Amino acid sequence: MERVLSSQQLDCVCVVLVRARNPNNIGAVARAMHDFGFRHLRVVNDYPVPFETARSAVDASAILAGAATFDSVAEAIADCTLVVGTTAVGERTLQHPLHPLPEAATKIVDELAPEDGSGRVAILFGSEKTGLSNEELSHCNWLLTIPMQQHEDVRHPSLNLGQAVAVCLYELVRQTGLSVAASDFVAAKAGEVERLTTLLHEVLQKTGYTRHHPANSDESQVRRMALRMGVASIDVPVWMGVLRQVLWKVRDSDTGKD
Amino acid sequence: MERVLSSQQLDCVCVVLVRARNPNNIGAVARAMHDFGFRHLRVVNDYPVPFETARSAVDASAILAGAATFDSVAEAIADCTLVVGTTAVGERTLQHPLHPLPEAATKIVDELAPEDGSGRVAILFGSEKTGLSNEELSHCNWLLTIPMQQHEDVRHPSLNLGQAVAVCLYELVRQTGLSVAASDFVAAKAGEVERLTTLLHEVLQKTGYTRHHPANSDESQVRRMALRMGVASIDVPVWMGVLRQVLWKVRDSDTGKD
Repeated sequence: MERVLSSQQLDCVCVVLVRARNPNNIGAVARAMHDFGFRHLRVVNDYPVPFETARSAVDASAILAGAATFDSVAEAIADCTLVVGTTAVGERTLQHPLHPLPEAATKIVDELAPEDGSGRVAILFGSEKTGLSNEELSHCNWLLTIPMQQHEDVRHPSLNLGQAVAVCLYELVRQTGLSVAASDFVAAKAGEVERLTTLLHEVLQKTGYTRHHPANSDESQVRRMALRMGVASIDVPVWMGVLRQVLWKVRDSDTGKD
Repeated sequence: MERVLSSQQLDCVCVVLVRARNPNNIGAVARAMHDFGFRHLRVVNDYPVPFETARSAVDASAILAGAATFDSVAEAIADCTLVVGTTAVGERTLQHPLHPLPEAATKIVDELAPEDGSGRVAILFGSEKTGLSNEELSHCNWLLTIPMQQHEDVRHPSLNLGQAVAVCLYELVRQTGLSVAASDFVAAKAGEVERLTTLLHEVLQKTGYTRHHPANSDESQVRRMALRMGVASIDVPVWMGVLRQVLWKVRDSDTGKD
């Protein structure tokens, strides 16, 4: 199911914003594209102010600077082999095939798969208030919807534009295999856990716990408990120090009593 | 891999916002929760203004109205069996196990799986500017990160809070099986396509296409072409009408010539 695409293949996806009205949303779309590794933003707008505002923001990205503007959907998608419209479903009667996101992303990845780079996919997002019009939808091969819970209160789904784009791009990237920065967390090795177990067992004996709770003090039981802690390698010396301190204090108080 | 949870089980997820500063982001978080079917929002804030502003917005949801506020992370997560911190990774040295989102969501779903409803999961999101502090992270069992492309320009990943929450909740819901509103699109039945094929073939003959392009006019070829159109059931009568009109016009012009 999962398939690794080259960055060159993923680069054949265009995000097309149609009549986006809120510059903050346009900026959020560009940031999601940057984070997920997409570069091609196309803007269809009869009213240029929102895009110009977004482009002139201090934190505007290279993606906004390089975005192409078009007067019509037809021009914006002319070089694409697959045109996907996004919709929140809702009260409208849809006359296109509709695919929920995970399946829709698979179909998009299929389109991008030929290694000759012949596949080029446009994903259209409509205006915040009305979505894509029927005329705009008529340019689409099929529609994508982000699966939502059906609520009794019939409030319309209300993800904003930046959220909808982020979810769609995440799903595309998820299906094509992403590398992630590794954590510095390293689990303790068995030998480290064993040294901890030995010391813990000694603490149980010296504090009298073993005597009062023999059923909990079996060495295997102590080992299992230490393993279940899932202790990090770097924390082992700290825990060893804590236990040694306990042992030192216990011996000290024993000496005091004697 | 995919596992269906009851809405009661999904209801055991709490989204915890720690020091969120932007009321618009808090509102966007609430909307994503509503769309994906989550209800429990908890807010940890020394500075109450952003949350109060979000709660008093005209389009504020039931989720914001029902959100619980806490003075500390410890209080906000006290009843949870699993506490997951979110991080954009970055320059910080992480001393927790780190799981990329798809895998992290699987672990969360595992925690929610017991049917006695004993699992309760908190997902913590930090402030827009600084994320979760080391003290806040220390309350977490492990960390979740949304996989991002590594860029050479070393700009930090920049999904906003509303986008990050939407992507995480989408992934949780994706893994637990979501029903989606069906499209009204119904593909044409084979019999409908066959009637269309017959009529199309007649058009090819009557217009002289068959005579000029015999290699393209074989009836099987015409049928395959009609099937590849992927025509919708409701469009069949329209196409039939178009073709009949062509035939009528062609006959008419033939009559005119005779």
